[in-house]
Amino acid sequence: METEPTSTPPEATPSRRVLLGAALAAGAGAGAGLITGRAVATSGNGQPPAAAGPAAASPPESFYGAHQPGITSHPLAALRLTALDVRTARRDEVRRLLVSWSRLAGDFAARAAANPADQITATIGLGRSLLTNPALGLAPRLPDALVDLPAFPRDQIDQARSGGDLCLHVCAAHPGTAFAATRELLAVAGSAAAPRWSVRGFLTVNGAETPRNLLGFKDSSGNPPAGEARDAVVWTAPESEPQWMAGGTYLVMRRIRADLDRWDRLDRAQQERIVGRDRHTGAPLSTGAENTPADFAATGPDGQPLIPIDSHLRRANLVFTRGARIHRRGYNYDDGLTPDGRTDAGAIFLSYQADPRRGFIPIHTNLANADALHRFLTHTASAVFAIPPGCAPDSHIGALLWT
Amino acid sequence: METEPTSTPPEATPSRRVLLGAALAAGAGAGAGLITGRAVATSGNGQPPAAAGPAAASPPESFYGAHQPGITSHPLAALRLTALDVRTARRDEVRRLLVSWSRLAGDFAARAAANPADQITATIGLGRSLLTNPALGLAPRLPDALVDLPAFPRDQIDQARSGGDLCLHVCAAHPGTAFAATRELLAVAGSAAAPRWSVRGFLTVNGAETPRNLLGFKDSSGNPPAGEARDAVVWTAPESEPQWMAGGTYLVMRRIRADLDRWDRLDRAQQERIVGRDRHTGAPLSTGAENTPADFAATGPDGQPLIPIDSHLRRANLVFTRGARIHRRGYNYDDGLTPDGRTDAGAIFLSYQADPRRGFIPIHTNLANADALHRFLTHTASAVFAIPPGCAPDSHIGALLWT
Repeated sequence: METEPTSTPPEATPSRRVLLGAALAAGAGAGAGLITGRAVATSGNGQPPAAAGPAAASPPESFYGAHQPGITSHPLAALRLTALDVRTARRDEVRRLLVSWSRLAGDFAARAAANPADQITATIGLGRSLLTNPALGLAPRLPDALVDLPAFPRDQIDQARSGGDLCLHVCAAHPGTAFAATRELLAVAGSAAAPRWSVRGFLTVNGAETPRNLLGFKDSSGNPPAGEARDAVVWTAPESEPQWMAGGTYLVMRRIRADLDRWDRLDRAQQERIVGRDRHTGAPLSTGAENTPADFAATGPDGQPLIPIDSHLRRANLVFTRGARIHRRGYNYDDGLTPDGRTDAGAIFLSYQADPRRGFIPIHTNLANADALHRFLTHTASAVFAIPPGCAPDSHIGALLWT
Repeated sequence: METEPTSTPPEATPSRRVLLGAALAAGAGAGAGLITGRAVATSGNGQPPAAAGPAAASPPESFYGAHQPGITSHPLAALRLTALDVRTARRDEVRRLLVSWSRLAGDFAARAAANPADQITATIGLGRSLLTNPALGLAPRLPDALVDLPAFPRDQIDQARSGGDLCLHVCAAHPGTAFAATRELLAVAGSAAAPRWSVRGFLTVNGAETPRNLLGFKDSSGNPPAGEARDAVVWTAPESEPQWMAGGTYLVMRRIRADLDRWDRLDRAQQERIVGRDRHTGAPLSTGAENTPADFAATGPDGQPLIPIDSHLRRANLVFTRGARIHRRGYNYDDGLTPDGRTDAGAIFLSYQADPRRGFIPIHTNLANADALHRFLTHTASAVFAIPPGCAPDSHIGALLWT
């Protein structure tokens, strides 16, 4: 629904390292690296990405690899993101929990491989409050990047639905699968951790097409293309500190209510001027197709910019040109009505970045102040989680945290 | 999740009248009336039902016909049920609303016919509070069957999430479609009616297979088979009064929270003794397959009944044998956490019957008192709506209400 840093070239230059990873993961046959004329890059977990075309389904992601699944792959239809607070003062119990979750998440991926129509990914995250909990003694391992977000203009954050010590980020082809998998994960937590909040999201997945948000527009069009550009945005560098987060990423979640009653009263042209893109094709209002770089200098017959000054596309781009980038993989949500009878629906905004201080924070600081779209959006919940790198089958997520 | 009146023969005897309707609706080719060895019955709206087999998709339902769509057809994956209260004292405005909704619901069905992968049905209902609103003067048209439900044992009904003057019962292949369709319907309501509550439900639809509830069991196994038996249960008779409801049905909705934390601690055998069915196959514990009639006299080596005395299957059957029947087409829901931190998930129980006084009320009266399953269930919202018969393209739902 927002913060789209666009104006990137439509074709990726696949990272040699990542292509190599894909070749390793796919075995000897991976040399056949062209699908519909585009180079095969990985979907972030050593898996090939969804093939182009509306009928193509993504192959199931493995749980084991350089990165956790469910981050840069094409999204599945259902999200259930659950935050938990630990109820133990013993770090060996927290570690045991991560071991159990890693094993179970590996089992989910194996089940999905056996039944590709019922895909599922489980991604595990750690919150700042876990790392700073004095009883657990993990403060020396706190990454600088695992910050609390500042307060932004227009924020109406409900703290009870924000934050959390741990997160279980489950995506699946069906909401029932995401629900059942979450319950299995919660069951192994026993008394060591208890749910703090959860959000449920959905998308209509149509092959590799960019899904639409509830405003009716394609969402996440401006994501960095697969390959080195995206890798640099999403994953922390191999040499980065702390080592337990090298190859990981940081998730910023925002629950964003959209004022759809007001939005739906605008006509298509008004909506497009606010977003800066064509509602049907997703193309920038300057010209072209969804992935055509925006031409911010282009003007219409009246001499006015085709992409308006306060449009979402232009405001987000301003920040992008200063180097702030994120990878978005958001969902829509529909929670019915607010207590005062308004539509409680909008976006579960999920962004992934190597450092929120060079990603979500500067981008949203810029948008919340001046973006025309933000007059229709209210952020009601917020969280940041460190998503450690992937692991091998004989290890677990966050293994280096304890060394 | 509940009130399953079973012990019915697995094969339907299709109603001659209904088969005729199918032939008319399907055109000259409808005589080829055998699919996988079973007679073709209609899915309640002059449409053939879903073909058997896990890969079969239901054909889109027409909006026009003897009955409204979305009632006896195989369920779609997503439900959005919205109740509204009228904000006008003018009955011509209410009538105009029903005219607009009928036209829009007809449009939805036409869109679904053009795009079968994105099916959608909209079903329109009227609540007792609408008929008894003194300003509208509709009290002479109030059906005896449109009753308020009595209070049941263990009820924890939230009145703000119950009742309502009107309902929009939208089912779709994707939650995003159900959401968008609901918004279109709400938009044409203008200031004449405003949303009171909504519930959102999901199912994993796998061809014609009976979907599972969040307890892990097949749900709605005991529905009356398509044909005369089901027609008599669901639709009011042609000669029934008031005439505006002849050929219609009554929807009883219950939002039922399941205590999954306690349920999941039971082993499979314990859960099966409570339900009275095999968790995997759905077969009664006596013997056989999902649709095998239950043998309540069967005993095990210990002399105890195989289907326990307080099991859900037996308790529901007791009422069924006295003639109370319903057609269930329920959904699962997942609303995250209750304010006190428990899992807020369970069933959006939807039952359809010609008269709730010979359907849901006696069945649930019996179950709520003695059913072992109800120790795990809490009813938190409740509503009854009159669902008028279908209409022709030049008419509207509830047209006879005004004559």
